Amino acid sequence: MDTELLRELATPNTTKIVLCVVDGLGGLPDPVTKRSELEQANTPNLDRLADDSVTGMTLPVAYGVTPGSGPGHLALFGYDPLKYEVGRGVLEALGIDFDLQASDLAARGNFCTLDSEGRITDRRAGRVATEKTIELCKRLNEIKLPGVEVIVEPVREHRFVLVLRGEGLEDGLTQTDPERENVPPPPVRATQPTAQTSADLANAFIVQARELIKDEPQANGLLLRGFAKYPNWPQMPEVSQMRAGAFAVYPMYRGLAKLVGMTVAPGGGTQDSQLEALKSRWDEFDFFFYHFKKADAAGEDGDFDAKVHALEDFDHLVPLLRDLGADVLMIAGDHSTPSQMAGHSWHPVPFLLWSTMGTTDAVDEFTEAACRTGALGTFPAKEVLSLAMAHAGRLMKFGA
Amino acid sequence: MDTELLRELATPNTTKIVLCVVDGLGGLPDPVTKRSELEQANTPNLDRLADDSVTGMTLPVAYGVTPGSGPGHLALFGYDPLKYEVGRGVLEALGIDFDLQASDLAARGNFCTLDSEGRITDRRAGRVATEKTIELCKRLNEIKLPGVEVIVEPVREHRFVLVLRGEGLEDGLTQTDPERENVPPPPVRATQPTAQTSADLANAFIVQARELIKDEPQANGLLLRGFAKYPNWPQMPEVSQMRAGAFAVYPMYRGLAKLVGMTVAPGGGTQDSQLEALKSRWDEFDFFFYHFKKADAAGEDGDFDAKVHALEDFDHLVPLLRDLGADVLMIAGDHSTPSQMAGHSWHPVPFLLWSTMGTTDAVDEFTEAACRTGALGTFPAKEVLSLAMAHAGRLMKFGA
Repeated sequence: MDTELLRELATPNTTKIVLCVVDGLGGLPDPVTKRSELEQANTPNLDRLADDSVTGMTLPVAYGVTPGSGPGHLALFGYDPLKYEVGRGVLEALGIDFDLQASDLAARGNFCTLDSEGRITDRRAGRVATEKTIELCKRLNEIKLPGVEVIVEPVREHRFVLVLRGEGLEDGLTQTDPERENVPPPPVRATQPTAQTSADLANAFIVQARELIKDEPQANGLLLRGFAKYPNWPQMPEVSQMRAGAFAVYPMYRGLAKLVGMTVAPGGGTQDSQLEALKSRWDEFDFFFYHFKKADAAGEDGDFDAKVHALEDFDHLVPLLRDLGADVLMIAGDHSTPSQMAGHSWHPVPFLLWSTMGTTDAVDEFTEAACRTGALGTFPAKEVLSLAMAHAGRLMKFGA
Repeated sequence: MDTELLRELATPNTTKIVLCVVDGLGGLPDPVTKRSELEQANTPNLDRLADDSVTGMTLPVAYGVTPGSGPGHLALFGYDPLKYEVGRGVLEALGIDFDLQASDLAARGNFCTLDSEGRITDRRAGRVATEKTIELCKRLNEIKLPGVEVIVEPVREHRFVLVLRGEGLEDGLTQTDPERENVPPPPVRATQPTAQTSADLANAFIVQARELIKDEPQANGLLLRGFAKYPNWPQMPEVSQMRAGAFAVYPMYRGLAKLVGMTVAPGGGTQDSQLEALKSRWDEFDFFFYHFKKADAAGEDGDFDAKVHALEDFDHLVPLLRDLGADVLMIAGDHSTPSQMAGHSWHPVPFLLWSTMGTTDAVDEFTEAACRTGALGTFPAKEVLSLAMAHAGRLMKFGA
């Protein structure tokens, strides 16, 4: 259901919901063995949990759409990912744990190499070392612009984040990356009149920045794209009437949780320490988001066996997740990452929902093929939150 | 499909469609036997019909959304229940067979108990006897307001319906039930400027009403909520090009049918007598809505065995329904009412469609688990009408 209906139907309760996101959970059958990573993996705890649960397949965004981490997670948090879009600049900032504020305008930056005529000869500046980028960002942080603060944060290799902080900044700016070489980077243009001041500031930043790095052998230019403001979205705790806490090792996922208003526990550590943290704060929240990264990383590496092992590692956590004593426990994925594709994919993702209601279906293993026959069918990932709240007695009847 | 597309594609034919709504049809497996009410019930006729039909599961409103009777039925009549919402005042009037007119503004009323300071001490006036409410309503019917007629109809115990009848009445009024005690009921406020006159009239009614009942020991005050106008919706006979007749024992369901423009047969009697009435008027209509109540009532009572028996009773009617000779015969539910939950629920509902086309699937019993594997899959209930019309040769090709 959409956010407005959810706000209307949500009602408080004392029940607790745990959403466990196994990043890149879904996979495809190996052409030889005909078994997917989940089918190959030895996952007795997941299979037992599936036996006690209702199951199905989530469609992350739409048929054939491969989601990035942003849309994949936002859907599972109950936000229509086609309506609630996160700009690349904001995502890049979230990915380095940068504490974005509501008025910030963020962009993703690349250092590049320019020739004497100002034409791009290398859009990635030879993938300059991260240390060099750190040094250059320090220099760029000295730039002064009228009325706004300039913050430049290094990411990795040639990448950085530019944040302009101040009142009245607007997105709706074009990128300066022409996405080809042998042409000069175009200036930033405003796509709406209210963004003209922001465009002028961005161009003033570029002029000063070029002057500061013009003598660099490789990184003597820069490209900006994905200008985006920190979005002002309905906040999950208010809409759902649930105190929500996020537990994730990596910054990107904490950042996404923060966007929807969750309280974000400190990151880092291990999967186990994040689970311990969740346990220790059990009384503070009604809704818990717990993120497990390793399956996606192995899939992205194209390493079938590593993904199998990652899923087996996750299986060891399942008894601990059950022991939390939630009223609703869900195992979901933000998207599939089939190791044969070495990247995200559009394929629906196995899903299970265990609840104290005790409802089950005939599915007794947690695999793509089995979940496809589950009672929940194949359904939009953005409905996961509604289903969880229904099973937790947190939604009122619609209409009389 | 939406109403506009249906209007565009609908084409006349001589075929007949019967929609049989088994109220609260769906259920959940018993935790011990693992069998739902439908699985437990001995329903040879339904199973044979399922064998000869295509089957699936309808999603009444949206994932996780528990529908009231209104949205549950409107979806089966082809109306998107999230777009076509019925106000509580209107539903309450329909439930007592009150003949609402297009300009009427209706509200649900409760008698309540007020202390000497005008604060609510009992929001339900001690659930005062229906006889008392009948007497008080007679008194309130004497109230005169400028330019509008005042109609006060008793419902049951402390509940009544207020109808203001006249031109220019608007909804968009707040309720006077603060939903807690020890505070005085607030006055009605207009949430839009066009509703100010209606708000003034409602408040004038309240002042006069209080004066008339002030000496009552229990019911010395009143609360109003769910102000709603009779909706002005596209009418099914015009949109679908089908003469539509409704056959239901209980007023609520006849009222819902009337909202979408069906011709409503007199209510009351038994399920059998309503079916006889339907049969006797076979030539008058193209589309027939037949309502079977008992399964929902048993589910609401939390009585698993009673629901099993209700479903077995319905099974006895199935041969009579088949004998009608419709071109399309559907068995559907407006929502699930699992007896374990003793109330409506969000779970998808078993559905079957038999037609003279003779199309079937592999499903040969009418249960939740079996219908889940049916050819129609799990689909929105608001698509039932389109499917029926397609099977009845009543929809043209879309595009060339």
